[in-house]
Amino acid sequence: MRTFKLTLSYDGTNYAGWQSQVDQPTVQGALEAVLLRITGESIRTTASGRTDAGVHALAQVVSFQSETHLSEEVLLRAIRAYLPADVAAASLETAADDFHAIRSAVRKRYRYLLAEGPEHSVFSRHYEWAYPTTLDVSVIAVAATALVGEHDFASFASSGSERKSTVRTIYDLSVVRDGEQVRFEVEANGFLYNMVRNIVGTLVEVGRGAQRPEWVAEVLSKQDRRAAGPTAPPQGLCLVRVDY
Amino acid sequence: MRTFKLTLSYDGTNYAGWQSQVDQPTVQGALEAVLLRITGESIRTTASGRTDAGVHALAQVVSFQSETHLSEEVLLRAIRAYLPADVAAASLETAADDFHAIRSAVRKRYRYLLAEGPEHSVFSRHYEWAYPTTLDVSVIAVAATALVGEHDFASFASSGSERKSTVRTIYDLSVVRDGEQVRFEVEANGFLYNMVRNIVGTLVEVGRGAQRPEWVAEVLSKQDRRAAGPTAPPQGLCLVRVDY
Repeated sequence: MRTFKLTLSYDGTNYAGWQSQVDQPTVQGALEAVLLRITGESIRTTASGRTDAGVHALAQVVSFQSETHLSEEVLLRAIRAYLPADVAAASLETAADDFHAIRSAVRKRYRYLLAEGPEHSVFSRHYEWAYPTTLDVSVIAVAATALVGEHDFASFASSGSERKSTVRTIYDLSVVRDGEQVRFEVEANGFLYNMVRNIVGTLVEVGRGAQRPEWVAEVLSKQDRRAAGPTAPPQGLCLVRVDY
Repeated sequence: MRTFKLTLSYDGTNYAGWQSQVDQPTVQGALEAVLLRITGESIRTTASGRTDAGVHALAQVVSFQSETHLSEEVLLRAIRAYLPADVAAASLETAADDFHAIRSAVRKRYRYLLAEGPEHSVFSRHYEWAYPTTLDVSVIAVAATALVGEHDFASFASSGSERKSTVRTIYDLSVVRDGEQVRFEVEANGFLYNMVRNIVGTLVEVGRGAQRPEWVAEVLSKQDRRAAGPTAPPQGLCLVRVDY
């Protein structure tokens, strides 16, 4: 039995998320169908994180085990040949026997894109939150500093999380304007369910002037999801990197 | 009766082109359904050019006539409210009675995007020609100069054209590399059926080294579609501007 590490990018628009579901197209389902077709084995794959419906990945990492004797190069070529057009395999390597896409991950980085203004490009509707008004990015950046470091992020975890501890460490949280696009990037040692989307939804409340910057620290300290802002919509979110 | 000039952008991915067809989604069909809903009139619209299935527009210009008494502002707001998410109305104005989106147009500009290399982004698959190898853009730029000016472009017109004359004037034809993306832009006083896609398909034959640069002038002089290269796929093409 060999353990593999596969790096995928995917456009999540047409998927009900990563995780296999009965009667719904999922990225995991598409990948496992490809692996069955190539190896004849019913292979169970594990991703570094289960992206939700409509969420994208530039570099999702997946681990799986297989009895295949195919070389990495041949297996990667076969996976590329069979994957649907909206899922791409960037790389495949043999990993240590105990490599596990979730448990072995030490850092992950997500990006969230928001586009401001009354008019939005039809070409980015699946990749941005089309936000009607202008945000004060400098105020958001100040407010965001309260979230950097090790904290209990219970206020930013939607129900549905299975994790016992809600303590995580955010290493970097940057908010940058590029024309009418606002780009959030968050890097942490792990993420709770909907954590990035809840952070973005909360910071946007500050950026549009509905809350003071100090409110973000208050939300964090309450350790209660009801204290935070709304969950930002999924299509702006993209998993950009996983470190092991 | 008032004459209107409407500017639209659309993502052509999910449409069988601009022109109305029975039992197929088209941009014209979607727009005319919206206008019927707002005005109660069966309005026939005319676009500056009939983009094909999968072809996009940043600024398609559409003319139509209506008995409506709505102000331009209210009519535009209503159109925006009812258009599907992949079609956006940029502007609407009342035009001269004899304004006609095709006949009044004096120049049009198209852009064609090609992405090189063995790997392609899943996010641009609907907006670029995913080309497997690298092209020599400097050689393409030299070859392209043969097409600038007034010429008979019969060699670059796919059958299906209704136009009598195949003489057109290309004012500008630029080919620029941006990383692994190659961007073609063509501006002319008018275009024959598939003309941009046939020009791109022909220039790519030169760029990949299958033909010499001088071959493009030979193709042009033959006035025979069979002399030119293949038709580039639709999804790389976008109508970017129409001048009146």
